[in-house]
Amino acid sequence: MCQRMEENAAIHTDRPGTAGSAAAYGDRIAALATPYAESALAVVRVSGADSISGIGSVFSRQGALAAAPGNTIHHGYLIDGERPIDEVMVAIYRAPRSYTGEEGAEIFCHGSPQGIQAILDLLFRNGFRQADPGEFTLRAFLNGKVDLTQAEAVKELVSARSRTAHGLALDRLGGSVFKWIDRVKGRLLHIMAAVDIQLDYPDDELESAGTASEVIPPGIILECEAELRSLVATYRTGRLYQEGVKVAIAGRTNAGKSSLFNMMLREDRSIVSEVHGTTRDYIEGTIIIEGIPVRLFDTAGLRPTDEIVESEGIRRSGMLIESAACVLYVVDGIEGVTSSDETTLSAMGERSGVIPVWNKVDSPTARSVPEGFVPLSAQSGEGLPSLYARMLREIAGEIRLGEGEPVIDSIRQKQLIDRSLDALERVKDGLAAGMPLDLVALDMQESLNALGEITGEVTTDDILGEMFSGFCVGK
Amino acid sequence: MCQRMEENAAIHTDRPGTAGSAAAYGDRIAALATPYAESALAVVRVSGADSISGIGSVFSRQGALAAAPGNTIHHGYLIDGERPIDEVMVAIYRAPRSYTGEEGAEIFCHGSPQGIQAILDLLFRNGFRQADPGEFTLRAFLNGKVDLTQAEAVKELVSARSRTAHGLALDRLGGSVFKWIDRVKGRLLHIMAAVDIQLDYPDDELESAGTASEVIPPGIILECEAELRSLVATYRTGRLYQEGVKVAIAGRTNAGKSSLFNMMLREDRSIVSEVHGTTRDYIEGTIIIEGIPVRLFDTAGLRPTDEIVESEGIRRSGMLIESAACVLYVVDGIEGVTSSDETTLSAMGERSGVIPVWNKVDSPTARSVPEGFVPLSAQSGEGLPSLYARMLREIAGEIRLGEGEPVIDSIRQKQLIDRSLDALERVKDGLAAGMPLDLVALDMQESLNALGEITGEVTTDDILGEMFSGFCVGK
Repeated sequence: MCQRMEENAAIHTDRPGTAGSAAAYGDRIAALATPYAESALAVVRVSGADSISGIGSVFSRQGALAAAPGNTIHHGYLIDGERPIDEVMVAIYRAPRSYTGEEGAEIFCHGSPQGIQAILDLLFRNGFRQADPGEFTLRAFLNGKVDLTQAEAVKELVSARSRTAHGLALDRLGGSVFKWIDRVKGRLLHIMAAVDIQLDYPDDELESAGTASEVIPPGIILECEAELRSLVATYRTGRLYQEGVKVAIAGRTNAGKSSLFNMMLREDRSIVSEVHGTTRDYIEGTIIIEGIPVRLFDTAGLRPTDEIVESEGIRRSGMLIESAACVLYVVDGIEGVTSSDETTLSAMGERSGVIPVWNKVDSPTARSVPEGFVPLSAQSGEGLPSLYARMLREIAGEIRLGEGEPVIDSIRQKQLIDRSLDALERVKDGLAAGMPLDLVALDMQESLNALGEITGEVTTDDILGEMFSGFCVGK
Repeated sequence: MCQRMEENAAIHTDRPGTAGSAAAYGDRIAALATPYAESALAVVRVSGADSISGIGSVFSRQGALAAAPGNTIHHGYLIDGERPIDEVMVAIYRAPRSYTGEEGAEIFCHGSPQGIQAILDLLFRNGFRQADPGEFTLRAFLNGKVDLTQAEAVKELVSARSRTAHGLALDRLGGSVFKWIDRVKGRLLHIMAAVDIQLDYPDDELESAGTASEVIPPGIILECEAELRSLVATYRTGRLYQEGVKVAIAGRTNAGKSSLFNMMLREDRSIVSEVHGTTRDYIEGTIIIEGIPVRLFDTAGLRPTDEIVESEGIRRSGMLIESAACVLYVVDGIEGVTSSDETTLSAMGERSGVIPVWNKVDSPTARSVPEGFVPLSAQSGEGLPSLYARMLREIAGEIRLGEGEPVIDSIRQKQLIDRSLDALERVKDGLAAGMPLDLVALDMQESLNALGEITGEVTTDDILGEMFSGFCVGK
């Protein structure tokens, strides 16, 4: 049994352990935790063994920090020799009650770029090194403060583009994905404990070996599969809220593309950025529709001034429309569908997500709205709610946002769940085909390993723990 | 006497008092104190009466905050009804041990723009209002935590463009200007106390009224003047370090302007930004020479492509050179001084700060360097230290950076010191002309009022204090 455990452990040598490696990460690191720009406050974060005495050695009130209990704040000056560097507040964190689980501190200084540089320089000359990206969270993981799904959620939380995406990431940070995975893993581990006992003592201690299906109940495997499928199905939703979608506004000149673009942005009070290339390519803005960040592109900027620019413009416009999840094709409702419109619309007939828009419906000379077109006035806003509803159907499709159900956003997590599901599929096949228990057990273990990788736990320790907890006391 | 005090007080009704007005500023305010961008951490700062219970009402561990002593940090969630908004640390500050002098808190949240917005929205729906710019520091002043020179130093510290400027502002934040002003004011107040007694009891209690010069010693007035002149003379230095200077690089095409520009910036590893207008106007970069931020402009971008652009380019170039404190005029040392160079140089002969540069001196075909030119190779960097030394002389002139002497950077402070000095000048004139004490006293008071305005103190209270402290106990 122990040999087998060691084999399993070997699979995961690229994954950091929870205890042994921590020492290697205990050196003193420092980094600016807020953006590098003028502001009222900035925060420099430090962590590592003796980091508090490290800060104390450049602090005007050294003794205050050394004696300070955790979660307290101290006023003073950072000092370079005799020279004060900045007036600061220093927050003290004692292990393990800190973000990283190590002792550490946060320096709240004035938000002056010059001052920030001076502070970092001072720390780097006094035993601290620049922290790698994500190193504080890596240490939090290594010290068991968070699992890998929570560590990923930290990153997703910061870069969330809508309230919904932010809420979903906060939920993951709270451990919702971890708990979901852990529940499934718990059920599989319980089975594996029985499997391992069966494999270790097949003849001498147990009456009969029984079939694989008696040790591995197919019903539970099916239930675990369903749970994992339910979670992995949220991936598309997670991406949709986190990354958002591209929507292009196309149509002939003067059809009202820019009016539509501006009206949609004005409603949302978003920031419009003009992107310049060799020529003015397009105008982009982001709006939020039902929590989904929608990157809106107005191709109206493509007003060719000579032939080279024109062909380049058409090429870029084509690429943009091709990559968009949804295209709003604006037709001038007064002029009606021209032959140019017909050509373009039939060319786009192949692709999904095209919404034809009949603009200028508030004009007395507007023609009647043909079937399939969304009636709209880009001037008055008439018809906009219907257009949003139509866009949402095209963009979101089968959104899954169950009450209390976690939504995943990490491709790593998705791929590992898929790997776990593939292994469970083989377990079911093996059971149906009456394969020997030791072979089916390999797929069970593979499924568990994939789940263990999601949360970053060392699965061998888990199996040992689960197994011995099932043993009688004293055996 | 009291009537006179009231008159003096009336002069300053536009200046906030130190005690009475504080109540009006005690409502609950909140603001983001860090830049609005994705980062590890962000800080939302709140202040005002009952602000801690205000935060407690949206915090997952309400009781923890209510019972918390000052300068402690607490982990929890901000909650909107049932919904968690973010996982945060909350630092608690109890009056008067806080930045504003009021009770307050700092919320350390994830640096997510979406999360920051959600937190501010939550606070604004729960009894907080958006703080005005500088309102936390205004409250610190109103609550007597800082004087006006320190309040101004906070702003100057954040926007400092060099380490020197940062150090000077930190010095002012520590109260160096306040102490300097206060020392002079103390001496003048001491005289004024004697003057007021003299004016209140001219005949009945004192033997003889004496002359104005007996009550107002001209020697002390001279010494106070010298102190104030010394301080006001630092203003130009303060501005130089804080604001920096413009330096333009001019010369004919291919003389090596861009090479010089790029080499100077590369040495300093600064960021080059290209500024676009209707045409490409110029390239700007900032370097630091001996602590002075130098905004370097390369006019090489002015490559006219047609006549309209050309004339516009020449106009812009001319404006830039005119507004620069120093112009590096680059001549191609291989070609020598052309007639075009001669025309430009003689046109600039009127102005100061022009440094002619003889470029490409490392070329074997370079001509010998004419008198007055700085020899340089913009390729190898040969001659750069000499050029910097020359620039420093042109830019800095009479820099004053005395040991332990404060340097002022505020035009408000400079103008008030000038006003105080003007009044002292009139005091001296009055004394010399043998004017009556009550008339000279008006100028003394005017000088003191100006100094009082610098630090923001209510001068009438001061005079009262100084006078009564000179009284016997029990009178």
